[in-house]
Amino acid sequence: MEGFRVLEIKKSVFENNDREADKLRQELKKEKTFLLNLMSSPGSGKTTTLKATIAALKDEMRIGVMEADIDSDVDAHTIAETGAKVIQLHTGGMCHLDAGMTKQGLEGLGTENIDFAILENVGNLVCPAEFDTGAVKNAMILSVPEGHDKPLKYPLMFSICDVLLVNKIDVMPYFDFDLDKCHEYVKKLNPNITIIPISARTGEGIDQWADWLRTQVAEWNK
Amino acid sequence: MEGFRVLEIKKSVFENNDREADKLRQELKKEKTFLLNLMSSPGSGKTTTLKATIAALKDEMRIGVMEADIDSDVDAHTIAETGAKVIQLHTGGMCHLDAGMTKQGLEGLGTENIDFAILENVGNLVCPAEFDTGAVKNAMILSVPEGHDKPLKYPLMFSICDVLLVNKIDVMPYFDFDLDKCHEYVKKLNPNITIIPISARTGEGIDQWADWLRTQVAEWNK
Repeated sequence: MEGFRVLEIKKSVFENNDREADKLRQELKKEKTFLLNLMSSPGSGKTTTLKATIAALKDEMRIGVMEADIDSDVDAHTIAETGAKVIQLHTGGMCHLDAGMTKQGLEGLGTENIDFAILENVGNLVCPAEFDTGAVKNAMILSVPEGHDKPLKYPLMFSICDVLLVNKIDVMPYFDFDLDKCHEYVKKLNPNITIIPISARTGEGIDQWADWLRTQVAEWNK
Repeated sequence: MEGFRVLEIKKSVFENNDREADKLRQELKKEKTFLLNLMSSPGSGKTTTLKATIAALKDEMRIGVMEADIDSDVDAHTIAETGAKVIQLHTGGMCHLDAGMTKQGLEGLGTENIDFAILENVGNLVCPAEFDTGAVKNAMILSVPEGHDKPLKYPLMFSICDVLLVNKIDVMPYFDFDLDKCHEYVKKLNPNITIIPISARTGEGIDQWADWLRTQVAEWNK
């Protein structure tokens, strides 16, 4: 048995999700836990990016990961190998997490000894964008094989994120991905977003991403 | 102005989606129109696959395409270039189409002179799987960069499809994608599914896919 448990999360009972999200952020502030909500399409490399992120930061902060999935424990197994604290959340068919569900996950994970908590949201560019999870910052991954036109097609997701990781840049030569066009489309929707090209596989760009996270976590604990 | 219009579709008012879907299929049967519901993650190559499909079949049947998207007309522009009849459906933030919404789309497209209608669903592996659109067959695309473990994580989608196109096989050498494992996971969920590896970009496998479609359209018109 590997070191994680599976939590079947329940539908939230709260009518006002935004209020619950603000309450959750206040609790996290008190506990000095920084929560990142990581979103993307299926298969863009969320879990591989998390592995690289944990490797870069695990000696500086205590990291806890919530792996949200409709089914399966594949990702929690992968993350458990890194030595980080991890819990698998099963959403029971739900396509996103809201603040109430995230709170259940955090309670299952236990945040008292966690400096940096990460929610790996359900792989989906649509629904997760519509619900504030209570996270301090929203991050998303767009992978090169998905194409640079995705900001045009899923504008809300690109609008609500604080940082965009453009992943799989190691395979750029094999795809028609225009990084300049991508920047242009994204910045038009969200001028303040930080864009970091990375390859979770080769490690390119992970330093810059880790630096961004260090700054955010330090800012939150001020 | 290119040859398509944009339809803002409304939320369905029907309580029983399955019944509406069955009614829609009966109407399509009478009109001798075959409707395919094409689903996948964002960026797996639905539109490029459609272009290759239209090129392969346009001399044999009258094709009509409904491009469903939350926003933007990118895909309808691309499909309009093929000469096929096309309409852009805007879902107004909705993450999927149900039978009532599909019916609005078909009415907008006009099916009286269409043998083969295609609904390009919203890019999403979760929600579209939960709603019968009234299509005669469900098809999905999984692209090589997404990884062979996706059937484990989005089981419902793989369970409800009649055919799976494994796209972008031309980039197989650059990814850790195990086609045998993919087959194994998918067939376990859905023993009757047809799996066709393709590259919409190079044209590999498109013949087999076009043959599968010919058979289905002929069967429907018997």
